[in-house]
Amino acid sequence: MKVVIIGGVAGGATAAARLRRLDENAEIIILERSGYVSYANCGLPYYIGGEITDREALTLQTPESFFRRFRIDVHTRQEAVRIDRKEKRVLVHNLADGTEYTESYDKLILSPGARPLIPDISGTDAPGVFHLRTVEDTFRIYDYIAQKQPKSAAVIGGGFIGLEMAENLKSRGLDVTLLQRSGQVMPPLDADMASIVHNYMRAKGIDLRLRASVTGISASEGSLNVRLAESDPVSAELVILAVGVVPENHLAKEAGLALGMKGAIRTNSHMQTDDPDIYAVGDAVEVIHFVSGEHAVISLAGPANKQGRVAADHICGVPRHFKGSQGSSVLKLFDMTIASTGLNEKSIRAAGMDFDSVIIGSASHAAYYPEAASMTIKVLFEKGTGKILGAQIIGFGGVDKRIDVLAVAIRSGMTAWDLTELDLAYAPPYSSAKDPVNMAGYVMENLLEGRVKQVHWQALETLPENAVVLDVRTPEEYAMGHLDCTLHIPVDELRERMGEIPAGRPVYLHCQSGLRSYLACRILSQKGFDCYNIAGGYAFYDNLVRGASPDPEGTGPCGMKIK
Amino acid sequence: MKVVIIGGVAGGATAAARLRRLDENAEIIILERSGYVSYANCGLPYYIGGEITDREALTLQTPESFFRRFRIDVHTRQEAVRIDRKEKRVLVHNLADGTEYTESYDKLILSPGARPLIPDISGTDAPGVFHLRTVEDTFRIYDYIAQKQPKSAAVIGGGFIGLEMAENLKSRGLDVTLLQRSGQVMPPLDADMASIVHNYMRAKGIDLRLRASVTGISASEGSLNVRLAESDPVSAELVILAVGVVPENHLAKEAGLALGMKGAIRTNSHMQTDDPDIYAVGDAVEVIHFVSGEHAVISLAGPANKQGRVAADHICGVPRHFKGSQGSSVLKLFDMTIASTGLNEKSIRAAGMDFDSVIIGSASHAAYYPEAASMTIKVLFEKGTGKILGAQIIGFGGVDKRIDVLAVAIRSGMTAWDLTELDLAYAPPYSSAKDPVNMAGYVMENLLEGRVKQVHWQALETLPENAVVLDVRTPEEYAMGHLDCTLHIPVDELRERMGEIPAGRPVYLHCQSGLRSYLACRILSQKGFDCYNIAGGYAFYDNLVRGASPDPEGTGPCGMKIK
Repeated sequence: MKVVIIGGVAGGATAAARLRRLDENAEIIILERSGYVSYANCGLPYYIGGEITDREALTLQTPESFFRRFRIDVHTRQEAVRIDRKEKRVLVHNLADGTEYTESYDKLILSPGARPLIPDISGTDAPGVFHLRTVEDTFRIYDYIAQKQPKSAAVIGGGFIGLEMAENLKSRGLDVTLLQRSGQVMPPLDADMASIVHNYMRAKGIDLRLRASVTGISASEGSLNVRLAESDPVSAELVILAVGVVPENHLAKEAGLALGMKGAIRTNSHMQTDDPDIYAVGDAVEVIHFVSGEHAVISLAGPANKQGRVAADHICGVPRHFKGSQGSSVLKLFDMTIASTGLNEKSIRAAGMDFDSVIIGSASHAAYYPEAASMTIKVLFEKGTGKILGAQIIGFGGVDKRIDVLAVAIRSGMTAWDLTELDLAYAPPYSSAKDPVNMAGYVMENLLEGRVKQVHWQALETLPENAVVLDVRTPEEYAMGHLDCTLHIPVDELRERMGEIPAGRPVYLHCQSGLRSYLACRILSQKGFDCYNIAGGYAFYDNLVRGASPDPEGTGPCGMKIK
Repeated sequence: MKVVIIGGVAGGATAAARLRRLDENAEIIILERSGYVSYANCGLPYYIGGEITDREALTLQTPESFFRRFRIDVHTRQEAVRIDRKEKRVLVHNLADGTEYTESYDKLILSPGARPLIPDISGTDAPGVFHLRTVEDTFRIYDYIAQKQPKSAAVIGGGFIGLEMAENLKSRGLDVTLLQRSGQVMPPLDADMASIVHNYMRAKGIDLRLRASVTGISASEGSLNVRLAESDPVSAELVILAVGVVPENHLAKEAGLALGMKGAIRTNSHMQTDDPDIYAVGDAVEVIHFVSGEHAVISLAGPANKQGRVAADHICGVPRHFKGSQGSSVLKLFDMTIASTGLNEKSIRAAGMDFDSVIIGSASHAAYYPEAASMTIKVLFEKGTGKILGAQIIGFGGVDKRIDVLAVAIRSGMTAWDLTELDLAYAPPYSSAKDPVNMAGYVMENLLEGRVKQVHWQALETLPENAVVLDVRTPEEYAMGHLDCTLHIPVDELRERMGEIPAGRPVYLHCQSGLRSYLACRILSQKGFDCYNIAGGYAFYDNLVRGASPDPEGTGPCGMKIK
């Protein structure tokens, strides 16, 4: 059996190694367009930032080491240009010497990845304008910085690569402006959670411009002018294009293979295209979203590797299935960790599900043990069933742990009730006796069982006329900042002072994070008040207001003034 | 309704707060024998070590704050001495003034905890001999160290408290000897995993004595002599007794309530004792082990809190169930993290299940990103079904995350195959594209599907006469230390040199961690050899040998010499 693999990173490399372990006699050939194989794709920004200093650390595997270990022929700088399905062969362009040749196959695995989307504006090819995908791209940016010593950079696009580049360029000492066309960075996050990231980026000295549409780039006097539709141009000595990626589908398309969403290659659960001898894996393929069951394109290394293994197994007669991606992801941004898994509000709405969410503030571990840091957790769940649909967490420590716990919970179809019962490992340096994930479960359980009613801050824009907004924090907290329109009664005084609340009117309560206002809701509702707890509390509101704009002009998104 | 709660820490405090949220009108009284309520039980050793410096951080809640927030009456220094079930009242001894009184109840919750086991030897009451349970115990030890400035300590017992005290006393500058009666510390771990802890403790300068049975303690000339059955006494200026805890059951026992394993209070899944008006929660109760379904006594804060909530809910008419503990735990030991969940070998054998285990070495995150640290993961699974039964992880970073991921996997009844499919969040600072938990799944999958055969190091004591042991590491690794009896062929040369392996004899392969020897097994077995991969590789063997004894005298547990 001869297997040809197009693309030698992530899914392709995994498939090759697995094929060899399953079949010592197979002929396995990898055709890789770049000069490197199985390189550390996700580590590239950190080489530019100086966090990773060893070039060879990025490219631990070489064609030689791959051959020694696996007897796999890795041909780098070889671009597959056409698939002849009938003859079962691939036309290959040797980028090193310009020649062409054909490579026959019994089975073909496409692992071409995704390519950076280059916006259709002028100047994207000007010197000093870069995108980041390959090791070569990385060295190109690195060398440019070393030679030209730019003082400033504009990063266009606020997704994973954009944020990682913003951080790493800032770490190199550049002034960084991040230009984001929409109103939020990090598309996997809901807008309210993204607000936290916006505030943090600004605090870290990144000039974040939201709703900034780039219309063109022009070079003038050693600097680049990035023109914007909404405002004056931004000047920078280095520009990174990071507006997203698109599945590399031209080989598949030209070969007449079925394509799906966003032009990604469609496969069955064995990663087989509609040509049974051709498999496709990684960023180029369409997947089924594990939670919604809908088609999705999810460009992440984890699923790519798993798909490579599935393809190799199926080629060797092992009936393995890839059961879908749930988009679990994590990003480091300076000291912050931003993570998500499953569906967000937008994708749940698209899937037509009835959902609600909880937002809680938790400490990463016991507050009395050193270095406890706060995190904000948003969990989305299906109304009625309580099934967990997605989660987003932002904080500084222990975030990656909780998102993985929730990722497993989602994978196994757990509900809010199941989260309350999770038996997680506790010691003061690591967690709390009630882990933040347990806490999220409790909050959902109380909603699902009707023990408390909840609204989100956004709902306060359309409050009933006679609504009372009640702040139950301490006088000290209240003095630090509060809504203009609130009644203020600290929770510890509520039992004596509830007579101050006008009778017969709905009461919307908040504290700093939502915990004390929940207790206050319980106290008041047992005394006949119609109460609503405001999710996330004042801390979350403050983020919402400041996150939407660095200068909120005294008015928040819910139409209430902040002091 | 009047609810009396005996014991105001963990489960008792949680039950009280939950009761109040559910019922604003209930009368709720906590009787706490110590002088503190809802204190940071698990943080106490860190106050002694100086990691936590603020006394008040340990005791954030006070009777006053509890009353202000929840209108709960907390009576400290009140010891419940007898329950009169017929009259539904508790006889209370006021430790502050020596008087006695009765407190009536509609519902009673017992949350008395567990008390330190005091070994039946002479001298346990000598000055300088302490145990650690309460805030008072903590301050007593702290003050003793401050006043007497002891230079040395003997810690008797190598469980959680013993190890935490050993670390914290060492951090305070004392010479620490740890005396452990059995051959291993940390009973939740299997002996092979405990070996890693033994080596680390010795490297950290703790004088670890295994199989050291204390027969008595005597004071002489300002120091304490700890006599041992097996060897000369150990002299120390401070002795900590940490040989375990026993359920505090005397109230329940005297009241005729049903007791279970180890004398722990037996309850139903609502945490109700056989008297429907009396509930019991926390370290004093017997639980059902979630994995084995057998009775168990598990003294951990997480389950205690959950049980408190279940009891409160049931009292207020919410039909909540506690579905069992799985013993998830984590311990910090200097920079090391030691964690486990589910069943270990001993408890699986007791439950009569047919199991195997895998042992893998993994990096905490991408090896090319700074500060990646190695961890050893052992996962136990049921043969045939592949159901995950338990896991143990030891390492330096990311251990608590993986044990929680496995804890959730166990909770949802996942199998090895499910672990391979987990969609976990990856970025280089946090994980690898194939997370260590995915890797453990792959290794189990290969065993379960018959793709490779495995033996454990212990099995090498009874190898067949004609066995060949093959080391497939590099010459450099081989030179650093190897088994005496091995044939050495690096994996990358195996295809050319397999003729050197005697034909017709079983081949037992190892590399450093088990990954390359797995590939070697695949290569050889496809060429007709009868191969067995040795779990955990040489790194694990080396730990086994050195962990069993600091001076292995050239012979390992499998009867083979090490160089």
